[in-house]
Amino acid sequence: MFKINENYLKLPGSYLFSTVGRKEREYKEAHPEKKVIKLSIGDVTQPIAPSIIEAMHKAVDEMGHAETFHGYAPDLGYEFLRSAIVNGDYKARGIDMDIDEIFVSDGAKCDSGNIQEILGLDNVIAVGDPVYPVYVDSNVMAGRTGTYNADTGMWSNVIYMPCLEENGFAPTIPEQTPDIIYLCFPNNPTGAAITRPELQKWVDYANEKKALIIYDAAYEAYISEKDVPHSIYECDGAKTCAIELRSFSKNAGFTGVRLGFTVVPKELKCGDVSLNALWARRHGTKYNGAPYIVQRAGEAVYSEAGKAELAGQVAYYMNNAKVIKEGLAEAGFSVSGGVNAPYIWLKTIDGMSSWEFFDYVLENAGVVGTPGSGFGPSGEGYFRLTAFGTYENTVEAIERMKKLIK
Amino acid sequence: MFKINENYLKLPGSYLFSTVGRKEREYKEAHPEKKVIKLSIGDVTQPIAPSIIEAMHKAVDEMGHAETFHGYAPDLGYEFLRSAIVNGDYKARGIDMDIDEIFVSDGAKCDSGNIQEILGLDNVIAVGDPVYPVYVDSNVMAGRTGTYNADTGMWSNVIYMPCLEENGFAPTIPEQTPDIIYLCFPNNPTGAAITRPELQKWVDYANEKKALIIYDAAYEAYISEKDVPHSIYECDGAKTCAIELRSFSKNAGFTGVRLGFTVVPKELKCGDVSLNALWARRHGTKYNGAPYIVQRAGEAVYSEAGKAELAGQVAYYMNNAKVIKEGLAEAGFSVSGGVNAPYIWLKTIDGMSSWEFFDYVLENAGVVGTPGSGFGPSGEGYFRLTAFGTYENTVEAIERMKKLIK
Repeated sequence: MFKINENYLKLPGSYLFSTVGRKEREYKEAHPEKKVIKLSIGDVTQPIAPSIIEAMHKAVDEMGHAETFHGYAPDLGYEFLRSAIVNGDYKARGIDMDIDEIFVSDGAKCDSGNIQEILGLDNVIAVGDPVYPVYVDSNVMAGRTGTYNADTGMWSNVIYMPCLEENGFAPTIPEQTPDIIYLCFPNNPTGAAITRPELQKWVDYANEKKALIIYDAAYEAYISEKDVPHSIYECDGAKTCAIELRSFSKNAGFTGVRLGFTVVPKELKCGDVSLNALWARRHGTKYNGAPYIVQRAGEAVYSEAGKAELAGQVAYYMNNAKVIKEGLAEAGFSVSGGVNAPYIWLKTIDGMSSWEFFDYVLENAGVVGTPGSGFGPSGEGYFRLTAFGTYENTVEAIERMKKLIK
Repeated sequence: MFKINENYLKLPGSYLFSTVGRKEREYKEAHPEKKVIKLSIGDVTQPIAPSIIEAMHKAVDEMGHAETFHGYAPDLGYEFLRSAIVNGDYKARGIDMDIDEIFVSDGAKCDSGNIQEILGLDNVIAVGDPVYPVYVDSNVMAGRTGTYNADTGMWSNVIYMPCLEENGFAPTIPEQTPDIIYLCFPNNPTGAAITRPELQKWVDYANEKKALIIYDAAYEAYISEKDVPHSIYECDGAKTCAIELRSFSKNAGFTGVRLGFTVVPKELKCGDVSLNALWARRHGTKYNGAPYIVQRAGEAVYSEAGKAELAGQVAYYMNNAKVIKEGLAEAGFSVSGGVNAPYIWLKTIDGMSSWEFFDYVLENAGVVGTPGSGFGPSGEGYFRLTAFGTYENTVEAIERMKKLIK
């Protein structure tokens, strides 16, 4: 008789964004006359940039002719893309990286969920609290997190690093020593950033404790301040303790195009075992490469034209972030984030819980945000808004939200 | 201190096709003047059909304009594609299927590797021997297969179902009762097919034993005989015991486009737990959807123009299969498969092992095939050739191989 993976039954409720989506749908069905503005899920609204569209058309044409047709891609991704990544994201910042340390994938969400597969089940993970739900949920599914306490919203075998007002909504080194540390900077959901000296402390700590850092840098394109690192490998010694996850979703609007990559340095080892070799084996066995057309689109991100067009997109979204942050602050809301990240982290009003505030904002302003508690217990009492809407909708949403404070 | 997943260290050697690729590269480097013909990996050579190219260009254009831009796809895949699948692959064959039982993915390889994640680690799996390596390797990585015996090439906790000359190179119901049964028809690597009454026996057996069948139907488009089922759901009771994996790689040449889907019927349960819900949760947490452009390409596969063009491609490859099978049989080789599948399963000559024959054929005919032993111990003494080359190369390869028998 076959048995299921019982760990799945431990997961409380459904995936955060599915619930947000359901509530939004239900509200729209009940109020078809109202214009609902969605500043919840981190989905972009700007179309794909012209030079990338051109690259995709060219690649589609190639697929239509036998001489230029491309079948299975190389396991790690095409060399043209991996070189563009090495040059554009690493060498350009003075970081030495080999193309065989870059693993192209269909996105950072998949990689952040899958990366734990190469690690033992007896590792104790540490996560920021609040945190992107995939880090914890994928570890729950694997059976690494112990039991769930519905009262506290916490797992018995997870180290939570609270991100609160007093630490600028960014995690600080925990008392209990973890084996694996998930860090996300610029942070989703709080929008907090970290300076290079502060990140260096994490790297030194991980090397000292022989802990592994899984560093999610999906939002690095939104960094505007000089002393904020774009890659963890800007820190000394990071190659012996850190894996970096990168995305094209937010810098190039690829949420529906699907492309990302993971960096696993060859120096990163557990005893004699190279994590680069383990991830290569996982990639080769359970994955079959990103589409050729999409990898060509990724290459165009690094072209001169692509870079210029995308800088414009990032500026557009960061202007939205400014509209949200300044508008809400002016109205009297307590807000943070939005300077080096496309997320604004907002305190609820009148002591409302996150979900109460979600319903309140949806009912009274027709704006969909994401309840902070969905990201972890310390997110309770907070609310996330994203800068990925259109400028017009963002302005309108904030005008409506301003009226919530009398 | 972080620990790796030790199961990875149990895996013997590297992924089969990586080794084949390396040997091919080394031979080419040593003999730059020789034309090597590759009939090894199941990669296609025909370009993407015109109507699909047109659909992709249209979708690329949509991505370039804000009004028609598509961000994150729905978790299970776009409804336009899932309806096309339900109508084209199921309703058209008299099978009732709900669109929420279809999960669109980036390919059957990923799905066949990932599907075991929703199942307990205490299940005993049964596999055909020889078999597509991903089924076993993904279970090794998860820790389900016990210890490896290098002498026999077998895992202590896997039930092997030998596919030999006497059973037409297709698995037969094993003595020991498995929890999970991987079946692949038309079969990779042997090219064997199964009749509907024979498959019904498997379905009845699984329902009786409460075993789960993971049915890989990636090659169904190559079925030419009437009594061979295209889907396991053509059998009564399959919805309570079977998951079906489907691919666009072989019917539409999408090896470099990346699209597949998995069918998890709602009736499929373990006690009260719906496997459909578990897979939906896995999909929502660890996956982020196939690209919009690729899903539109998949939709075009089911258009009238698409179907006609693809029937031509399948016929082209099946003509290659005929060239290989008849040519080699005529020369005195012992061959099977190639009637309902694009694979020809060939006995080595002069008592050579599979890898000896691989080297012999590469050295003396400049043809790359796949050693049968790479697919499992009972594949020893066999060799797989694929029909996915060009017609011209296939004819030339077979002419060269004929000369190996004096």
